[in-house]
Amino acid sequence: MGPHPAVAAIRLAVRRVLHDVLNHDCAQDRREPPLVLVACSGGADSMALASALAFEAPKLGVRAGGVTIDHGLQEGSDLRAAEVALRLRALRLDPVEAIAVDVDESNRVAHSASYRGGGGRRVGGPEAAARDARYAALDATAERHGASAVLLGHTRDDQAETVLLGLARGSGTRSLSGMAATSGRNGRYRRPFLDVDRQTARKACLIQSLPVWDDPHNADPAYTRSRLRHEGLPALEKALGKGVVEALARTAQLSRDDADALDAWAADAEGAVLDDTGTLDVAALFALPPAVRRRVLRRAVIGAGSPAGSLFARHIEEVDRLITAWRGQGAINLPGRVGVRRQGGRLVIRQG
Amino acid sequence: MGPHPAVAAIRLAVRRVLHDVLNHDCAQDRREPPLVLVACSGGADSMALASALAFEAPKLGVRAGGVTIDHGLQEGSDLRAAEVALRLRALRLDPVEAIAVDVDESNRVAHSASYRGGGGRRVGGPEAAARDARYAALDATAERHGASAVLLGHTRDDQAETVLLGLARGSGTRSLSGMAATSGRNGRYRRPFLDVDRQTARKACLIQSLPVWDDPHNADPAYTRSRLRHEGLPALEKALGKGVVEALARTAQLSRDDADALDAWAADAEGAVLDDTGTLDVAALFALPPAVRRRVLRRAVIGAGSPAGSLFARHIEEVDRLITAWRGQGAINLPGRVGVRRQGGRLVIRQG
Repeated sequence: MGPHPAVAAIRLAVRRVLHDVLNHDCAQDRREPPLVLVACSGGADSMALASALAFEAPKLGVRAGGVTIDHGLQEGSDLRAAEVALRLRALRLDPVEAIAVDVDESNRVAHSASYRGGGGRRVGGPEAAARDARYAALDATAERHGASAVLLGHTRDDQAETVLLGLARGSGTRSLSGMAATSGRNGRYRRPFLDVDRQTARKACLIQSLPVWDDPHNADPAYTRSRLRHEGLPALEKALGKGVVEALARTAQLSRDDADALDAWAADAEGAVLDDTGTLDVAALFALPPAVRRRVLRRAVIGAGSPAGSLFARHIEEVDRLITAWRGQGAINLPGRVGVRRQGGRLVIRQG
Repeated sequence: MGPHPAVAAIRLAVRRVLHDVLNHDCAQDRREPPLVLVACSGGADSMALASALAFEAPKLGVRAGGVTIDHGLQEGSDLRAAEVALRLRALRLDPVEAIAVDVDESNRVAHSASYRGGGGRRVGGPEAAARDARYAALDATAERHGASAVLLGHTRDDQAETVLLGLARGSGTRSLSGMAATSGRNGRYRRPFLDVDRQTARKACLIQSLPVWDDPHNADPAYTRSRLRHEGLPALEKALGKGVVEALARTAQLSRDDADALDAWAADAEGAVLDDTGTLDVAALFALPPAVRRRVLRRAVIGAGSPAGSLFARHIEEVDRLITAWRGQGAINLPGRVGVRRQGGRLVIRQG
């Protein structure tokens, strides 16, 4: 008799990712078996992930380790982290580390640049600060141990929430694309559970008698994501039917592919409209589909020094009107002291 | 002293659309001034629209008329329609018609084909049947009077709801693009209020002492849209903040532009991968970005006779695996008796 379906599901998800990690890794010449780390909060999702990694890794000749981060935001969080580390060791993960980070909101923006693509507008607050500190610590730990990958326990439900958070920004297809299955430097971060629902992870912990910890933040209505999880999504499901989470997760994948294709088109098109004086040809821009033209403009403005995170759709729309609704308007000033003006048949974009 | 801001806002929205209609219309040689009709349910949105049309049209030398549809779904709906027609005549609209339609669910699919693009999956139920009957009657009325345009009262809030309904289908960027500002044969249908919120329309009616009728269907929880309006969206706003409706409306516009650009790319790419025997080159397909490749496959399968409305993302994914995950799998059977098989380096798509 095989394992419970929930346990089988989480193991299959991890096995697929380990195969993929090995395929990418075997290109490198190494003396010892590759190491895969799991980032574990002690919650059901990441405990399930840790258990599946502990089960699958040895069968594939992969070493399995774990990291838990102490954000220092709650009383006794250090004890909690030590306890999670013990649980990871009990799963025979090795190495296991509990790492305390300093969640410093003032340093947040500098950190964040490396974890967000050009497209996203920054969502502030304590969640973002904690995330930045966490990824910095995970990066450092992965480097120190020479890990081939770090597994993250985000589930399909987390993905659905992320899509809704992106929807609330209203900044288009890229912001609807949720979390990538593979991200970070050299594709270090992997999310094996993006197609696994939270209920399955929880069930797998129960079946395997794994103790889990429910982060009180997850139920704290002060947090946007928590309000979404406990009020927003259930209300949407009530109105639209039970398939909403799955539909949102599918939207993430489709949106990601669409955004990638359009970004590739814009990169190509930029070459064709940009001349060697660094100005853009208005007639050539006008001939592009609006979706591509706006992306080319965004690229050019960022290229001239405007910070991606401060550049909103309304900025690009204003620049676009120099092309589509030209009536002699003056230079447009954008974040990062970048100015755009139309001069003859060309757009001149300069930092000054 | 100018009009109340709400009245000014609805008039401006209508004036812009009338200018656009005139620009398109002046190409035609006509003996009499153009006619623009407003489709009016008697609710606040379309009554506000009718009032703005009645005010703006004469100033631009446009004749303004009105149509109200009696769906025959409620007791006394004929009296209601007659009353709305009287109100439209009171606004000095001429011609004004009240038209009774037969909402026949069994005929629905045949009708619907002309009102939906190839991308949409059909949402069934009484709402869809009523919509189909309504548009058929509006089309016929516009033809009979030789109207240049028919104005529809959909507001930004309606647009936000439409985006969420599309999101629930989980079928990607096109399904998130909401309602077009211009649609139908020759761009007949115009939606001047897509940037106007429901509250503004309501306020404009109040200020102008226009009697409005609240359709009880709008508050009936048996209807998906009504549940969304009264429960889903408010819960989302509570979780994500007040800007959600605006963000959803912006998402519609951005998604529409993105979907248009990708469709154009796919149409181009289809020419390049299709040979004169009507089969598709696998290597050329493989080289396309996934978002474009899937659109090419969808086009080809529909071209072979598969009905767009029955063709879901999972069908196209299965076809895509003939290219990206080829392991000798057999022919794939799709709706409309269309089969796809890989033969040598080519995809053969045939109805049989």
